[in-house]
Amino acid sequence: MGLENFNAIEVKPSIPSGTRDFGPLQAAKRKYIFNTLENVFKLHGFQPIETPAMENLQTLNGKYGDEGDQLIFKILNSGDFMSKVPPATLIEVEEPNSKLITPYISERALRYDLTVPFARFVTMNRNDISFPFKRYQIQPVWRADRPQKGRYREFYQCDVDIIGSDSLMNEVELIQLYVEAFEKLGTTNYELRINNRKLLQGIAEQIGAADKFIELSIAIDKLDKIGWDGVVNELTNRGWDSHKITELKSLFLINGSFEEILSQLKSKLTSEIAKKGIAELETINSRLQTQDSKLTPINYKLDLALARGLSYYTGCIFEVVVNDPACTFKGSISGGGRYDDLTGIFGMPGVSGVGISFGADRIYDVMEELNLFPEGLDMSSKVLVCCIDEESLQTGLSLCSELRRKDIPCELYPSASKIKKQLDYANAKHIPFVVIIGDDERKSGIFSIKNMETGEQQKLKIEELFSCLTLNSK
Amino acid sequence: MGLENFNAIEVKPSIPSGTRDFGPLQAAKRKYIFNTLENVFKLHGFQPIETPAMENLQTLNGKYGDEGDQLIFKILNSGDFMSKVPPATLIEVEEPNSKLITPYISERALRYDLTVPFARFVTMNRNDISFPFKRYQIQPVWRADRPQKGRYREFYQCDVDIIGSDSLMNEVELIQLYVEAFEKLGTTNYELRINNRKLLQGIAEQIGAADKFIELSIAIDKLDKIGWDGVVNELTNRGWDSHKITELKSLFLINGSFEEILSQLKSKLTSEIAKKGIAELETINSRLQTQDSKLTPINYKLDLALARGLSYYTGCIFEVVVNDPACTFKGSISGGGRYDDLTGIFGMPGVSGVGISFGADRIYDVMEELNLFPEGLDMSSKVLVCCIDEESLQTGLSLCSELRRKDIPCELYPSASKIKKQLDYANAKHIPFVVIIGDDERKSGIFSIKNMETGEQQKLKIEELFSCLTLNSK
Repeated sequence: MGLENFNAIEVKPSIPSGTRDFGPLQAAKRKYIFNTLENVFKLHGFQPIETPAMENLQTLNGKYGDEGDQLIFKILNSGDFMSKVPPATLIEVEEPNSKLITPYISERALRYDLTVPFARFVTMNRNDISFPFKRYQIQPVWRADRPQKGRYREFYQCDVDIIGSDSLMNEVELIQLYVEAFEKLGTTNYELRINNRKLLQGIAEQIGAADKFIELSIAIDKLDKIGWDGVVNELTNRGWDSHKITELKSLFLINGSFEEILSQLKSKLTSEIAKKGIAELETINSRLQTQDSKLTPINYKLDLALARGLSYYTGCIFEVVVNDPACTFKGSISGGGRYDDLTGIFGMPGVSGVGISFGADRIYDVMEELNLFPEGLDMSSKVLVCCIDEESLQTGLSLCSELRRKDIPCELYPSASKIKKQLDYANAKHIPFVVIIGDDERKSGIFSIKNMETGEQQKLKIEELFSCLTLNSK
Repeated sequence: MGLENFNAIEVKPSIPSGTRDFGPLQAAKRKYIFNTLENVFKLHGFQPIETPAMENLQTLNGKYGDEGDQLIFKILNSGDFMSKVPPATLIEVEEPNSKLITPYISERALRYDLTVPFARFVTMNRNDISFPFKRYQIQPVWRADRPQKGRYREFYQCDVDIIGSDSLMNEVELIQLYVEAFEKLGTTNYELRINNRKLLQGIAEQIGAADKFIELSIAIDKLDKIGWDGVVNELTNRGWDSHKITELKSLFLINGSFEEILSQLKSKLTSEIAKKGIAELETINSRLQTQDSKLTPINYKLDLALARGLSYYTGCIFEVVVNDPACTFKGSISGGGRYDDLTGIFGMPGVSGVGISFGADRIYDVMEELNLFPEGLDMSSKVLVCCIDEESLQTGLSLCSELRRKDIPCELYPSASKIKKQLDYANAKHIPFVVIIGDDERKSGIFSIKNMETGEQQKLKIEELFSCLTLNSK
């Protein structure tokens, strides 16, 4: 296709790969997830904030690792953006270097997650915030990832964070929140994996690889997918000696309950940081296990192989994995952890926080597959008012107006089309009741109401009609 | 990237000009507007849809006029985007032309409004939709406009459209919806301006300027701001002869009630299209005026000078203007109209629709200025549980868990800090009740609850505590 055709008038419509439209039923189901999560967040005293979709590029750059930087959607500057590109950049190199040019033609980008914008928000508004600050945020994020099943370029994150308190009670609260949220969504077949980055750092120190902590994390994070052979391969390729790898493997093969694993590690790891990580996990575990506790029991386990790639985590880390035999999706639907210095990069050091993020789109896929959405989410109107003739439309208009004043969702079919067509519309929209108005009804003020499911018909005065529809309200 | 690197680059945080952060109170107020509008939309049987923030650039290009095209935020292609730019484009011209290069380096853009994405959605999903299709959509849009008071680069539109029906009952329904929406928001001091593009076209024909309809619309749209002198100037500069302009002015100076203006125009305008426009306005007016109508009365007027710039409107057009002496903001807070062929551009001709769009950000500014938000929107928790000592935290945790099971929003202060600090936190977050737990409470199971407003304190058993907090629920 030539450039001339670029602005051709008629285009076959499509949407960018990795993005999605949501029709009425899908949108209603999504709202159900957002509202359910929001209600749980509010029950815990979290307050909403919103940040702009666009952030300054420098706010995001460098926060998600090299790979993450590549996946940030950048926005082209407005106007004559090329005028700021130094001519040398274009002329002196044989092939213009996109990386070199980007900073001159793009100053803004779409947010990549909600955590970094939150840290920026906290730093900018620190004087107006009472700490500990508990905020929730339900907004879309964008990543230029290769689209595949369960991975989208635009997706919603539902985040809760508590910042400005290093108490482990916050971790305990978030775990409780997990239980409540998944209980309310009906997705109760899951496993909550817990680990601690200090413990991982302690392991790295123990085997003499303290300086290779990130390499270790990245490799270990893949254990699930590539197995020990893969991890050994990867570390060997990175130049690790086999002695280190053997020691590493022996630590990771420790098995048992939460307490048993910790007790074995305690005897093997000697560094301060390992001890701290173990102590944190013990505290959390004991808070959740207390005999007289009225807390809802929860299926959680200590998973040493959980590393969470993002480098800002410094303490406990979490991941929730669906564990339902009936569900083909096996990946993580939520994750999070403690960060001790996220706002430091913006000039506000020493503020510890902990947060978790629910992946609404993956939760949607799981709930869809397990058939967990309640019935009737796509019901819009309670009643459709149908008119047999043009003269009845005015009566229909008034009737709808009165029904709405009584909070009964309703609509008037906007023309006196054939009744079959109007009834088909009611069926297609799952509208449970239909009122038909013609000459008789208009004159008598007695309306005929039809239950679309049972086919049952009744003749009712207007007040009876209101009661009938109110009684049948969900 | 290691942790050290993560903390290395310190940037002073800021957000892009024309965008905004919303803190807890602002976010709660925004949610109040969205929820109020959504409830009204649902009462009318509108169903939600969502479309992606990113659209293919060719979906948006050419839909908003030349000026609009300039204001679309374009997204830079990922990866080595420069590799697709023909070298000639860079080398052969002295200064690289941004317009020429854009199509090679950007294929996607942020949506500019919700109407064009809606038309694209309808075209792509026509086989799954039952027409007439009533949808609502509450999502942000982006425009690279010069930021100023009341004008943002990212703002929310709340749209309702009915597509697939040319009945004027739809116009009447949307006017009713206006009344209900603004009544529920409390912004009742407004004026609804109505006009019809067919009438404007008829006027253009009448004065022999049928081919200059767009010029006429653009000039007339500014009448409010630049007065008749300005309009005369603008049209003269565009080469209109004074005879035409005089005739135009005489038509626009017709004064009187809705009916009076129409009756005068009827005697002066002879073209088919003018007659059609007048007839449409008469029908709508009579539907709203019917004596036995139970419709809520509404302050609307026929405003010939309302033109609505967007070229896709073909019938009735609306605009809502705040008309409150106590409000400094005087601009439009909502607008819309009928379009007869919006989906035609995507290959689905002959589908008529009508819709209106609420500008949530402007409505927010108006409600803020007029003090129309209900009290207590920023209240998060109903009760803060404070612990005097570390040992009490576990009791506090259980208590919160039980309170939440009874749907009482609450939170545990996460550490046994000084009580004053904990109470200050409750006050800052407007938490109305505080429960303090220490040695006595833990052992006796009798809790001390304090009303933070009155200072009143009570000692209550746990069951009494639940009743007390439930009774005091909003």
